Amino acid sequence: MQIGMIGLGKMGGNMAERLRRGGHEVVGYDRDPDVSDVGSLKELVDRLEAPRAVWVMVPAGEPTRATIASLGDALSAGDIVIDGGNSHYVDDQKHGKELAEKGVKFVDVGVSGGVWGLQNGYALMAGGLPEDIAHLKPIFDTLKPEGEDGFVHAGSIGAGHFAKMVHNGIEYGMMQAFAEGWELLEATDIVTDVPGAFKSWRHGTVIRSWLLDLLTRALDEDPGLEDLKGYAQDSGEGRWTVQAAVDHAVPLPVITAALYARFASRQEDSPAMKMVAALRNQFGGHAVTA
Amino acid sequence: MQIGMIGLGKMGGNMAERLRRGGHEVVGYDRDPDVSDVGSLKELVDRLEAPRAVWVMVPAGEPTRATIASLGDALSAGDIVIDGGNSHYVDDQKHGKELAEKGVKFVDVGVSGGVWGLQNGYALMAGGLPEDIAHLKPIFDTLKPEGEDGFVHAGSIGAGHFAKMVHNGIEYGMMQAFAEGWELLEATDIVTDVPGAFKSWRHGTVIRSWLLDLLTRALDEDPGLEDLKGYAQDSGEGRWTVQAAVDHAVPLPVITAALYARFASRQEDSPAMKMVAALRNQFGGHAVTA
Amino acid sequence: MQIGMIGLGKMGGNMAERLRRGGHEVVGYDRDPDVSDVGSLKELVDRLEAPRAVWVMVPAGEPTRATIASLGDALSAGDIVIDGGNSHYVDDQKHGKELAEKGVKFVDVGVSGGVWGLQNGYALMAGGLPEDIAHLKPIFDTLKPEGEDGFVHAGSIGAGHFAKMVHNGIEYGMMQAFAEGWELLEATDIVTDVPGAFKSWRHGTVIRSWLLDLLTRALDEDPGLEDLKGYAQDSGEGRWTVQAAVDHAVPLPVITAALYARFASRQEDSPAMKMVAALRNQFGGHAVTA
Amino acid sequence: MQIGMIGLGKMGGNMAERLRRGGHEVVGYDRDPDVSDVGSLKELVDRLEAPRAVWVMVPAGEPTRATIASLGDALSAGDIVIDGGNSHYVDDQKHGKELAEKGVKFVDVGVSGGVWGLQNGYALMAGGLPEDIAHLKPIFDTLKPEGEDGFVHAGSIGAGHFAKMVHNGIEYGMMQAFAEGWELLEATDIVTDVPGAFKSWRHGTVIRSWLLDLLTRALDEDPGLEDLKGYAQDSGEGRWTVQAAVDHAVPLPVITAALYARFASRQEDSPAMKMVAALRNQFGGHAVTA
Repeated sequence: MQIGMIGLGKMGGNMAERLRRGGHEVVGYDRDPDVSDVGSLKELVDRLEAPRAVWVMVPAGEPTRATIASLGDALSAGDIVIDGGNSHYVDDQKHGKELAEKGVKFVDVGVSGGVWGLQNGYALMAGGLPEDIAHLKPIFDTLKPEGEDGFVHAGSIGAGHFAKMVHNGIEYGMMQAFAEGWELLEATDIVTDVPGAFKSWRHGTVIRSWLLDLLTRALDEDPGLEDLKGYAQDSGEGRWTVQAAVDHAVPLPVITAALYARFASRQEDSPAMKMVAALRNQFGGHAVTA
Repeated sequence: MQIGMIGLGKMGGNMAERLRRGGHEVVGYDRDPDVSDVGSLKELVDRLEAPRAVWVMVPAGEPTRATIASLGDALSAGDIVIDGGNSHYVDDQKHGKELAEKGVKFVDVGVSGGVWGLQNGYALMAGGLPEDIAHLKPIFDTLKPEGEDGFVHAGSIGAGHFAKMVHNGIEYGMMQAFAEGWELLEATDIVTDVPGAFKSWRHGTVIRSWLLDLLTRALDEDPGLEDLKGYAQDSGEGRWTVQAAVDHAVPLPVITAALYARFASRQEDSPAMKMVAALRNQFGGHAVTA
Repeated sequence: MQIGMIGLGKMGGNMAERLRRGGHEVVGYDRDPDVSDVGSLKELVDRLEAPRAVWVMVPAGEPTRATIASLGDALSAGDIVIDGGNSHYVDDQKHGKELAEKGVKFVDVGVSGGVWGLQNGYALMAGGLPEDIAHLKPIFDTLKPEGEDGFVHAGSIGAGHFAKMVHNGIEYGMMQAFAEGWELLEATDIVTDVPGAFKSWRHGTVIRSWLLDLLTRALDEDPGLEDLKGYAQDSGEGRWTVQAAVDHAVPLPVITAALYARFASRQEDSPAMKMVAALRNQFGGHAVTA
Repeated sequence: MQIGMIGLGKMGGNMAERLRRGGHEVVGYDRDPDVSDVGSLKELVDRLEAPRAVWVMVPAGEPTRATIASLGDALSAGDIVIDGGNSHYVDDQKHGKELAEKGVKFVDVGVSGGVWGLQNGYALMAGGLPEDIAHLKPIFDTLKPEGEDGFVHAGSIGAGHFAKMVHNGIEYGMMQAFAEGWELLEATDIVTDVPGAFKSWRHGTVIRSWLLDLLTRALDEDPGLEDLKGYAQDSGEGRWTVQAAVDHAVPLPVITAALYARFASRQEDSPAMKMVAALRNQFGGHAVTA
């Protein structure tokens, strides 16, 4: 089917390519004229036949908000907007309401796959009305990995990004679990082949997983990770997961610990631990490292 | 090759079977005469040709200690004992020293695989001298899963169980990460197809893993896990992992949180939270649930 | 000086009483006519001389929002509203802006003291413009405990409630630290006089504190806390503290753990631990408690 | 009464001084001849009248073990040894058994007070037989702070150090709670008088405590703690608390998080976070800080 794609960066560009390979007609728009098929969002809308489907794949937050607002103006009743970016589920619910006032439909899709998606397919989690999801099925079928899994209609508007958010929260916890295990193995003198231990776990163990495959690949390239700094960004979904947990009174000790470890990794020095050092000095005359 | 196997329970029995299918001669001994090939440990030793190899597969702690002590008496210099149970790496180092005084060699092997091992093979992590490991290679090759992975000579005596211990610690963290994600998805009204979300993640996502496969299988059988109680045992390795972390001054927030969640799951009521309730009552006159 | 007080419940009523004892003229308004000095908010405003000062002491959230909106309509430019409830600092900033459009000034005050405040004074943390804080000084001086401490002008609008929020976050962490210590002491057979241990700590130790005093009082009344359930509410500030931490990328492992312990204390059964039990059952055939 | 004191460092020396001021006869022995009253441990024993009481105040671990072994040789049946150092409760039980074989009695005492103890008294937690505790009461009465609290006979041998260990675990949690609160207050622009906020909390709040007093003193000396590094040692009791928790299956999330924060504070870079960075790079092509 025909679809507009706004945002042709690393993710959006590869998704457009996968859709084209799958036989769909993709009209792409990007601020960068070198990769854009059209000169403006208006031209994109004009090039599509009603009822139009426009997939938004731009950075979450203000860029997505602005794009959806523009689409609300440019599209017609019966058209459909898909937000495939990393939006907060709370924003989806606002966007859905705004577009609905103009008769424009809205579906949110959480997309997983990263740089491997073009080749292997993108795992898709969608939120919206059943009829809107059904209408977009050909698109989803092409984007998702082969096989029976890789797509879910998770619930109402926001459910796609909520599910994706939780997926990423789980990812944080799993990555930290592997990372802690690696640190402990490196800390003991008894174990001398740490990369070998991880490699051995790739088959027949409870923890075999794609992350373990990636981990062994990373250790192949740099067995002691000596070229890396212990510095990790967080992309937003981890924070939203913790905030959703607090909102729903759900205890998430592991996922939160993983998020906090990232926060701490970005600090030159820990303010809290300065205070602990100060207190130890006050009550015990303990030596302080200045 | 020829090997003695002590302990023919769920694990040892299946491992003996896999070895036999692989062409090895296994002489098994178990306290249960119905499954034992010999009437006593002495008879087992007599049935094996020197230099003997005896694989111990009995419960960790006192049973393993007692078995290894008996073997130290019954075996001859040049024989080799393999502890494939869930022993603490600290115990391995003691056992290795005791056996060495009698000229008996010792190798420790952490074994992963559970009920799936007979069919898929057992992931093996071994600790000991290179020549002892090399001698046992035919056994390891048969027990381990097919392919290049599934076995590691991790280091000196104790390294096998240390690596297995860390594997299980990582497993605790991963399981808890999935469990927390499930609880949060269940807690929101937006997501209506929680099992579908997990199922969709099996392909094309960062968190695809054997645990995720098991999780979707569990949700297939009981979509809301309504037949289960939130009660989880811990098998020892999780505790040892945290103790090793404390000994090595390695922070393990995620793995420890997962262990503590299991401790808490087994409490009828939380003593600590009684005290929190008592304090709230003291300072704020907050209502207390009695 | 003269002040209006809206909300004459446990907190507001006692604060009005302390102000009267301190020589101030308090005109109180409450929905309950039995305790109210006036019949309506309008009558309250009429009874006060301009520039008026009105202290709002009603539940946080909608009641506070509605009260401040009504005051915005009823008051005149130059009047001042003080929010002494448990409002979120984010709301303060909105309220300040709304009132400022009408020329009405706004100060937020975090109040600590609970049931002991009437007698011992209330610790006050204020946010707002220096001139507004200065104008209200006689009120603050009467409400606060005797001595040099007990009051701070913490910063701009919202700073009072931000500081109070952090105070409560610290309180969560301290309470949980004591509670965990108590649980561990109760768990060992070696220590036979647990209440005595806590009592002994009241003097000469690093952890002597008002919470420790309250704790020993609680143990005096019920040495094993056998009449209590391990069930603890959270009053909002703990959640806001964690959310502020996530917003500011500040790791708060202890305060968050204390909040999560409260969430968990209110669950009949832990959904996450059902999933852990399910996974253990899937991979290990571990017995499951149903 | 008469008492021998072994170890006249910062703690032991001040305790000897407090005992002398209280009218006791103290014979002190230290490896440093400048502060020692006698030339050898043997001379110390000779100078005391039977039944002797000897207080050991040397570093925990090997020094304490060696000192107690020597005393076991030098003392006579009916004499009593008091270990007032920071020993592990597990060691107390061994020491008590060893001494009992020679008829020598043993009492363990956890001592809190630090540099303030000489002036304010030392909080004492004792473990041992009731008659041995009773015999030493004059000593305890002099060492402890004035008033009814500051001393407890907590239970059997080891109970004193167990209680002290838990005291320190609670201390870790409280310090970290304050430290986290400080970091969050420093992180927001709204609060401009952070030291003032802490100071205001010293009266009328739930968190008033000696640690808060020390904290405000530290901020008086260095309002932003700019002269300090966020580096904190741990003195052993925190680790033992977590190990005891693991042994007793008691979840201690707050105390453990505080311990782990200290471990992390001493790392130049976090190995675990190197692995997280490596994984992020593998699956997402995320930029890595090298």
